[in-house]
Amino acid sequence: MTSKRYLIIGGVAGGMSAATRLRRLDEHADIIVLERGGHVSFANCGLPYYLGGVIEERSSLLLQTPASLGSRFGLDVRVRTEAVAIDRDAKTVLVRDLVTGEETTEAYDALVLSPGATPVRPPMPGGDRMLTLRDIDDVDRAMAELEVAPRNALVIGAGFIGLEMVENLVHRGLDVTLVELGDQVLPPLDPEMAAPVADRLRDAGVDVRLGTQVTELRASTALLSDGTTVPAEFVLGSIGVRPDTRLAAAAGLEIGERGGIRVGDDLRTSDPHIWAIGDAVEKVDAISGEHRLVALAGLANRHGRLAADAIAGRDVRVRDALGTAVVGLMGLTIATTGWPEKLLRRVGREIRVVHTHPASHTGYYPGAEQMALKLVVDAETDEILGAQGIGGDGVDKRIDVIATAMAGGLTASDLADLELAYAPQFSSAKDPVNMLGYVALNAVEGLTPSIQWHELDAAMEAGDVLVDVRTPGEVAAGAIPGSINIPLDEIRARIDELPAGRLVVHCKVGQRGHTAVRLLAQLGREAVNLDGGYLTWQAGESARSHAEARETAIAA
Amino acid sequence: MTSKRYLIIGGVAGGMSAATRLRRLDEHADIIVLERGGHVSFANCGLPYYLGGVIEERSSLLLQTPASLGSRFGLDVRVRTEAVAIDRDAKTVLVRDLVTGEETTEAYDALVLSPGATPVRPPMPGGDRMLTLRDIDDVDRAMAELEVAPRNALVIGAGFIGLEMVENLVHRGLDVTLVELGDQVLPPLDPEMAAPVADRLRDAGVDVRLGTQVTELRASTALLSDGTTVPAEFVLGSIGVRPDTRLAAAAGLEIGERGGIRVGDDLRTSDPHIWAIGDAVEKVDAISGEHRLVALAGLANRHGRLAADAIAGRDVRVRDALGTAVVGLMGLTIATTGWPEKLLRRVGREIRVVHTHPASHTGYYPGAEQMALKLVVDAETDEILGAQGIGGDGVDKRIDVIATAMAGGLTASDLADLELAYAPQFSSAKDPVNMLGYVALNAVEGLTPSIQWHELDAAMEAGDVLVDVRTPGEVAAGAIPGSINIPLDEIRARIDELPAGRLVVHCKVGQRGHTAVRLLAQLGREAVNLDGGYLTWQAGESARSHAEARETAIAA
Repeated sequence: MTSKRYLIIGGVAGGMSAATRLRRLDEHADIIVLERGGHVSFANCGLPYYLGGVIEERSSLLLQTPASLGSRFGLDVRVRTEAVAIDRDAKTVLVRDLVTGEETTEAYDALVLSPGATPVRPPMPGGDRMLTLRDIDDVDRAMAELEVAPRNALVIGAGFIGLEMVENLVHRGLDVTLVELGDQVLPPLDPEMAAPVADRLRDAGVDVRLGTQVTELRASTALLSDGTTVPAEFVLGSIGVRPDTRLAAAAGLEIGERGGIRVGDDLRTSDPHIWAIGDAVEKVDAISGEHRLVALAGLANRHGRLAADAIAGRDVRVRDALGTAVVGLMGLTIATTGWPEKLLRRVGREIRVVHTHPASHTGYYPGAEQMALKLVVDAETDEILGAQGIGGDGVDKRIDVIATAMAGGLTASDLADLELAYAPQFSSAKDPVNMLGYVALNAVEGLTPSIQWHELDAAMEAGDVLVDVRTPGEVAAGAIPGSINIPLDEIRARIDELPAGRLVVHCKVGQRGHTAVRLLAQLGREAVNLDGGYLTWQAGESARSHAEARETAIAA
Repeated sequence: MTSKRYLIIGGVAGGMSAATRLRRLDEHADIIVLERGGHVSFANCGLPYYLGGVIEERSSLLLQTPASLGSRFGLDVRVRTEAVAIDRDAKTVLVRDLVTGEETTEAYDALVLSPGATPVRPPMPGGDRMLTLRDIDDVDRAMAELEVAPRNALVIGAGFIGLEMVENLVHRGLDVTLVELGDQVLPPLDPEMAAPVADRLRDAGVDVRLGTQVTELRASTALLSDGTTVPAEFVLGSIGVRPDTRLAAAAGLEIGERGGIRVGDDLRTSDPHIWAIGDAVEKVDAISGEHRLVALAGLANRHGRLAADAIAGRDVRVRDALGTAVVGLMGLTIATTGWPEKLLRRVGREIRVVHTHPASHTGYYPGAEQMALKLVVDAETDEILGAQGIGGDGVDKRIDVIATAMAGGLTASDLADLELAYAPQFSSAKDPVNMLGYVALNAVEGLTPSIQWHELDAAMEAGDVLVDVRTPGEVAAGAIPGSINIPLDEIRARIDELPAGRLVVHCKVGQRGHTAVRLLAQLGREAVNLDGGYLTWQAGESARSHAEARETAIAA
């Protein structure tokens, strides 16, 4: 029996998972890993935190070396080595040593492509000054610039990584400007969930410019699309990544319409001897069933292992991708899974939306923090389509639980029945996830119809009456214009004060509103609850003002 | 239409959930809540923390009053009022005002029993000195005794509540003795998962007496079953609760073999007009399908709402109970769901067991804490039967995720595919729950067979060879007696040094062991992994020494 020869192009998450798994499955194979960069196994998700000094030692970022991988797994790992071309007929790869320039040809029985993705760079004058943060070389370059002690920084792109860059540059003491093309930070979230993040950034002194583009990078400043100039001694960008499909495309492998390598659910490309994994590959979206680009480390790791299993002849089937993600920012935790409301509405899906504002744990135990949760549900089937959370402690836990419920095919109503660990410092007897289920159940059962913050204006224009059921003290601290205040506990006595017409009821978070709707409905009044109450409306207003500030800026 | 009349016996979690839900479903009903105690809505899970001073204000414990419930929900709430007898034919309840002694008869259309459970009291001389902690009256009594400034305390029972009592009494500065009849603290957990808890208690100066009973309470000391005497100026007990079925039994309602009120999956008792919920009621266990007593606040709340739905004519079906629980203790978080290994082995179920020791988040981001996780799986179907976790940050999250996976019918292998929120400060690209799935998959696929810590002695007696694949530095700090040390990275070169026979391989946590087993198997050696590695073995040894200490004490 001659031993197999496996070639893996690209190290890090996906490639290294494939290589080590292949070794565990086949002790006798030749396994060669080719990595263009100088490091084959490093903590790419830790790079922003090394920049910020939260991770103090550069060595902490380096997880494995070619030598350690060689002695433990018998891998032949070659860094600064580029795969130049694939000859599919000959089943060989032309390989170039980037240090010596020497080229060799390597044969394979199976080839794994894990080339990753390359940062998108806007074509603009001075664009070369924008640094990115994908590998160790990048972070070394950025650190070298930071050692010159710039006073200010420009971050381009307010996605998950962009916000981590901002946090860490603020942590270093720089004055930071954040420029984002979209109307909001964190584009995967809905605007009212993202608005508090922009507010938190501004409170921390970050100059947040939404709906704005950088058009030119000068020596120490940047020109923006609204004509203003911002300081930019140090420039870091994270405006997205593009699958690195050069090698695959040149070899004639199928590329999908989203621009990633197309693979089957066994991760095989259009060539039966070539597999592909990681950020370069299109995933199947769990909500739409369509292909989509999802650049997440968890999927890269998982798919690396699965590709190895497939190569070893095991039966594998890749699960569709939800795209669960989280970011920590200045004490906030922001997490999401599945699809946001805005995207589902755009594709015309009939949905129900639930906003809640629960405490991370019981209010009577010290240290409870309020969070905002959002659940998006198929209106017909009660299927959970997405969830978002923002707050402090315990937000990641709730999104993980919901992502797991989605994977298990539980409906929104089923969340009411989850048995989650409860003690006063960890949760409430009705966990926030249970509460989402309760609210969903009330909607399924038709008990408490609700409308969303962005539907309120239209409702009031159509003649609905807005009833604020909070206490006068709460109302004095801020109220929705045009509302009538009758506290919940007084509704029974004062029902005659309510004008004719449909009533839109609201409280602070939605819970008293629910009780009021039930009461009013049974007293013969048509009533709906303003989902998420005053707090969600307020976040929605904040999102709107961010977007409007941009409109004004453009007009001016 | 005459309005309905609903009577609810017992307030707090279950009763109040039923009452408020009934109101939201029926604005016109008469809803009367009868509560024997002085408070109808209080934070019973917060009582130990008020005792310890963590919750500073007594008022924080009081959530709702009869007046607030009256004005908001139109409930007729009567505290210090006892239901004396049910006349099922007449559909009336004989009610006694405990203050005036006056008795009245209240009619009902539907009756909800939520009487809760009463603390078990061991029959022993001086037993009256043992305080319990079920309601506000209890905590007032305990606080009065603590104000006399006892120097030491005895806690009887090392279950979840017992440990909370210990933590809070230590927090108050008392010298605490903890006496537990079983061989371990936290009886719902497996011994090797509970052993570190006992160690932590001892490190904190708590005198932990396992396998021991209190036989007599004297003026300021207690006599134990091993003949020793311990200081006991203050005595608090939590040795379990007994469903309060007096009223139900006297009315001839069916009582189950576990001693709780028997209800159907619509929470209806054997009388079609009477429902029952909460700690007084038997639940159906999700693992065995048999009836079981589970006294958890989450279930009481959920069932209160479901009983109201059922009474209102809605279609309800109670889910079987997993029994998820968590406790915080001196910086440790300990959580569990489903069944432990020991119970499943006792009933003869064929199971697989996985122990891991992952970090709460990536090792390169500051503040990661190591936890121990355990997963118990049906050997044939891969169904998840239980999970336990102990550590710091993030243990509750992982148990919640697993409990959700169980509710969704996911298998142990499916855990590998969960998409959980990852950023370096929250998790790892392979979350600890994913890792459990990976290990489970390796077992399903027959790649890496394993044995448990408690099977090692028998294996070595049968002639197996124990191979420690850790580094010499690790071995020097402590090793399993009788092991041969060959570091993982040297196995290929030194394979000839291994004696004949089956090899039991182990590392620190199980991961290098897995790689070693794969390597050895492919080099023609029969090898199994010691599940959980040295750390699980060490915890098992600690559990064994706790149990043996008891044996010695009894013998002496």
